[in-house]
Amino acid sequence: DRPLLVIAGPCQLESLDHAQMIAGVMAEACAAAGAQYVFKASYDKANRTSLSGKRGLGIEAGLKVLETVRKTMPVLTDIHDAAQAVEAAHVVDVIQIPAFLCRQTDLLLTAGQTGAVVNIKKGQFLAPWDMANVAAKVASTGNENILLTERGASFGYNALVADMRSFPIMAQTGYPVIMDATHSVQAPGGQGGSSGGDRRFAPAMARAAVSLGIAGVFIETHEDPDRAPSDGPNMIHLKDMAKLVQLLMDLDRLAKADPVRL
Amino acid sequence: DRPLLVIAGPCQLESLDHAQMIAGVMAEACAAAGAQYVFKASYDKANRTSLSGKRGLGIEAGLKVLETVRKTMPVLTDIHDAAQAVEAAHVVDVIQIPAFLCRQTDLLLTAGQTGAVVNIKKGQFLAPWDMANVAAKVASTGNENILLTERGASFGYNALVADMRSFPIMAQTGYPVIMDATHSVQAPGGQGGSSGGDRRFAPAMARAAVSLGIAGVFIETHEDPDRAPSDGPNMIHLKDMAKLVQLLMDLDRLAKADPVRL
Amino acid sequence: DRPLLVIAGPCQLESLDHAQMIAGVMAEACAAAGAQYVFKASYDKANRTSLSGKRGLGIEAGLKVLETVRKTMPVLTDIHDAAQAVEAAHVVDVIQIPAFLCRQTDLLLTAGQTGAVVNIKKGQFLAPWDMANVAAKVASTGNENILLTERGASFGYNALVADMRSFPIMAQTGYPVIMDATHSVQAPGGQGGSSGGDRRFAPAMARAAVSLGIAGVFIETHEDPDRAPSDGPNMIHLKDMAKLVQLLMDLDRLAKADPVRL
Amino acid sequence: DRPLLVIAGPCQLESLDHAQMIAGVMAEACAAAGAQYVFKASYDKANRTSLSGKRGLGIEAGLKVLETVRKTMPVLTDIHDAAQAVEAAHVVDVIQIPAFLCRQTDLLLTAGQTGAVVNIKKGQFLAPWDMANVAAKVASTGNENILLTERGASFGYNALVADMRSFPIMAQTGYPVIMDATHSVQAPGGQGGSSGGDRRFAPAMARAAVSLGIAGVFIETHEDPDRAPSDGPNMIHLKDMAKLVQLLMDLDRLAKADPVRL
Repeated sequence: DRPLLVIAGPCQLESLDHAQMIAGVMAEACAAAGAQYVFKASYDKANRTSLSGKRGLGIEAGLKVLETVRKTMPVLTDIHDAAQAVEAAHVVDVIQIPAFLCRQTDLLLTAGQTGAVVNIKKGQFLAPWDMANVAAKVASTGNENILLTERGASFGYNALVADMRSFPIMAQTGYPVIMDATHSVQAPGGQGGSSGGDRRFAPAMARAAVSLGIAGVFIETHEDPDRAPSDGPNMIHLKDMAKLVQLLMDLDRLAKADPVRL
Repeated sequence: DRPLLVIAGPCQLESLDHAQMIAGVMAEACAAAGAQYVFKASYDKANRTSLSGKRGLGIEAGLKVLETVRKTMPVLTDIHDAAQAVEAAHVVDVIQIPAFLCRQTDLLLTAGQTGAVVNIKKGQFLAPWDMANVAAKVASTGNENILLTERGASFGYNALVADMRSFPIMAQTGYPVIMDATHSVQAPGGQGGSSGGDRRFAPAMARAAVSLGIAGVFIETHEDPDRAPSDGPNMIHLKDMAKLVQLLMDLDRLAKADPVRL
Repeated sequence: DRPLLVIAGPCQLESLDHAQMIAGVMAEACAAAGAQYVFKASYDKANRTSLSGKRGLGIEAGLKVLETVRKTMPVLTDIHDAAQAVEAAHVVDVIQIPAFLCRQTDLLLTAGQTGAVVNIKKGQFLAPWDMANVAAKVASTGNENILLTERGASFGYNALVADMRSFPIMAQTGYPVIMDATHSVQAPGGQGGSSGGDRRFAPAMARAAVSLGIAGVFIETHEDPDRAPSDGPNMIHLKDMAKLVQLLMDLDRLAKADPVRL
Repeated sequence: DRPLLVIAGPCQLESLDHAQMIAGVMAEACAAAGAQYVFKASYDKANRTSLSGKRGLGIEAGLKVLETVRKTMPVLTDIHDAAQAVEAAHVVDVIQIPAFLCRQTDLLLTAGQTGAVVNIKKGQFLAPWDMANVAAKVASTGNENILLTERGASFGYNALVADMRSFPIMAQTGYPVIMDATHSVQAPGGQGGSSGGDRRFAPAMARAAVSLGIAGVFIETHEDPDRAPSDGPNMIHLKDMAKLVQLLMDLDRLAKADPVRL
C-alpha cells in the first residue's frame, strides 16, 4: 500500500558522472510525483548474447560508483555468483538475481545470507507460480526482504510476452512484485549478435502492470538509448521519464485503492 | 477519445427475461459511470469443445430476443457463416466474427457487405500485426465500421496469454481496439470436454488494457457463472460489474489523456 | 501396420494437365517405393492471409479436375462449409477439414454424414489430446473413417512448431495419424501479405514423424515452388519426391516393427 | 558420419556401485549395437525446483566415482561454476554446461580453457540459431571440441517442446548436435515442488531426431526411475535401453546415408 517504487537507471554503469546525472534526473522526477526511487545499474553484463558485447566497468570500479551514488539514494545492482553477492551487498541496498540464474540454489542462498534486499527476476522459462519455490530458497536463510520481478516469458523464438496474471500470482507469496517494463519488451538475441527489442512498448507495459496495484516498476533509461552500450533498443529516453512517472503515480493511486488480489 | 465502450452480457442467450435482466443491470452500471454500453449475447455456440456442450437458443429464437433488447440499447452478436451474417445484421448493431473464423475470406466479405459494424476477434493463432490484412478484407467492401478485439494468443497447450502490445499495434490500422477480458483468461479445452479458465484474472486484464487508452472492453458476465451454460469459468459475477466499470472509467480518463500510440 | 500413406500434390489446383502431371510423378514414386498414394489439391484457398492472394479454380472447375484424376487414383480435397462438404464428397475419397475450422461443429457433422473419409487437420490452437473431442463430433454421425493430421502448433507470433508427442497422443483415439510436413514448416503471415516458411525443413519433419511409426505423411509439392500460387515457401520440389518417399518407406519399415504407442 | 554417440546414465550419482552397474549395462548395449558410448552422471543438482530436492554426492565424492568409471569408458558430467569446470576437467572427458547457464560468458570461457570437450545444452529460452554465438564464446579459447544439445524450448508454462528444426540449424555451426531425449519431455516445475515429465515420449524424441542424421543422443536412465532421486518422471527404464539403442542404430544408418543439411 506504499506509493509506487521506481527502480530505474542505465543498463550498465558507464562512469560516475553518467550515473549521477541519471540518478539525479530520476530522483527529482520521482520526488515530484511522490514515488519511491532506487537507482539501478550493472557493473558487469555477464551474459551478453555475443562475446563482443561490452561488459561494463567491472565489479571493483562499478561498486565504487554505486557507493558514491548511494550517499544520496538507495541503490540496486545485479550479481552473478556467490562471491559477487557478498561483495556487492556491502555497497548496495538491493542485490538482484538475474533471470537466467533464478534457479541456482547456491546463489540464492548466499544472496539471502547477505541480509540485503534480494530482487529475483523471474526466469523467462518459469511460470509465475514457480517463483514461490524460488523465493523459499532465499527465505530459508531467514531473509524475507525479497522482491519478485516479472520480465517476460519465452514466447516462441527471440521473443517474450509479459503476462499480466503474473502479478497477482506472484503476490500470493506475500512479497512485493515488480514489473520490469524494459526487459519484457526485449527480443532476446533478436539482432543476431545482440538482443533487440522495441522501447515504444515499455511505457505500455509499465502502465498495464501498475493498473493492477503492484509494488513497483523497473525501467532502464538513458539520455541517448541508441548509443547505450547494452539494451539500447528497450530503454526509455531519460527525457520522457518524468512524465511517465507522473502518469504511473496517478494510475497507482487508483489501482491501490482496489488492488487485484487472488 | 470517446469514453470507454463496454460490450457485455452473458456468453449465450438463455431467455428474453434473462437477457433483459443482465442488459438492465449493465446499462445502469455503464450510465452511472459514464461508459458507453452494448449488450452482447450469442444465439449459437457453434464451436464448443465437445459435442455435448449446450449450443443455445438457435438463430431464430435468439434474434427475436436480441430484437427486443435492442429497443432500448445497441446489441452485438456473433455469426458463423455468411447466411447468418445477413440475417443477424437485420437485427443487431454489431456482428462479430469469432476468432477461429477471422481468416475466412467469404465470411469477412459478407459481413462487411451487410453494412453493420463488424467486430473481428483476433485469432489465437495470429499476431496483432496480422489483423491489418484481416480488417482490409472487410474494408474492401466499403464498410469501415470495424472493431478489432484481442482475446489472447495461444501459449503452449490449453492456455492463452494476452499481450498488451496488441493494442497499440492493432490501433495502427486506425480502427478502435477492444480487450476481451474474459476470453483471454480462458484455458481452451482445459477441462477435457470443455474450456476452463480463471475469472479471477479477468478484471486484471480489463484494467491493464484500459490503462493504455483503448476504445473498449468486452466482458462476459452472469448472475451465477458457475451455472452458466458456457464459459462459466471465465465470466465475471454480474454483482461485481458496477464497481469494475467505475474503476475502468477512472483508468480510462487518465489513460486517454495520454494514450499509448506507436 | 499398412505401408506408409503418402498424401501429396500441389497446394492449389492450377489446371487438369498440371494436376495429372504431378499425380503421375507421385503415383510412380509411391509405387516404386511401396507406399500408398492419395492425390491432394485444393479448388479454393478460402483463408488466404490477404485478400489479394489467389484463391484457385473454384469448386465447379476444381471438382471436375479431381474427378478426372480420380479415375486412376484416390483423391483428397479440403472443404470450407457444409454445402461444399456434400458436393465434394460426391467426387473425392477424402474430404479434409482445414485446421482453422476443426472446431466448427456443423461442418464436422456434415462431413461425417457424407460417408467420405474425413481428414481433420489439428488446429494450430489445439493440443493433441483435444483432437479426441473433435474426432468424436465426426464419429457421432456413425462415420469412423477419420484421419487426424498434425500441422504444427502456434509458437509465438508468425511461427509454428511440430510436436512429435502429437502422434502417439492422437493415435490413442484409434484413428490413423498423419504428419503434414509442409504446413508445419509454415511461418503463418510471415511475409506480411502472405505466409512464409522454409521448405528446407519439410523433409526433416516427415522423417522425424515417420520414424515413430505413423500412418502417413501429407506433403505439398510443385515442379516450381517459387512460382506456385500459394504456399510456395514450404513446398518440396517435385523432382526431390521420389528419393524422399523411398527414404520414408525405409524408415517406415523400421518404425512399424516397433511403433511408439502410449 | 561416425556411428551414433549415446550419452547415457543416471540423472545423479548415487554410489560407485550404482554408477558401475548402469555404465556396464549401457556399455554392453552400445557395443552390441555398434554405437559409441559415454557415461553421464551429475555430482550436484544445483538448480532443483525446490530447496528440498536432493542434490547428490557433491563434487569431491562424485568426481572420485567418475574417475573410477572412466578407467573403462569416457565420462561426462555437468558443472555449475568456473572452479568446478577446472576441477571436473581433470577427471572427465566431457564437461557439460547446463541449459540455464548457457549464456554465462565466464563459465563458457573457463570451460573452453580446460581443453575438455564442452557439451552445451541449449537454453530453454534460446532459438537454435542463437547457439552459434554461444559456441563462439567457447571457441574463442581455441577449444573447438564442442557439442550442442537440444533439450527443449519453453512452450507456455511448465512445458517444453522439442523442435526438430534445431538439429540442422545448430549443425550449421559445424559442431556435432545431440538430442537430449529425456529432458525434452520434462514438464519443468510441473509437480509443484519438482519437475514432472512423461518418459513414455522419450524414445519418440530420440527416434525422431536420429532419423535426421544427428551426431548423438543424450538419455537419462535408471533401473527404477520411480525411485530415482531426480528426474524420475522422464528417465527411461534401464531394461529398455538395449532394444532402443539397437533401433536407434538402425535408424542412424538410414539417416546418415542422407542426413538433413541446410
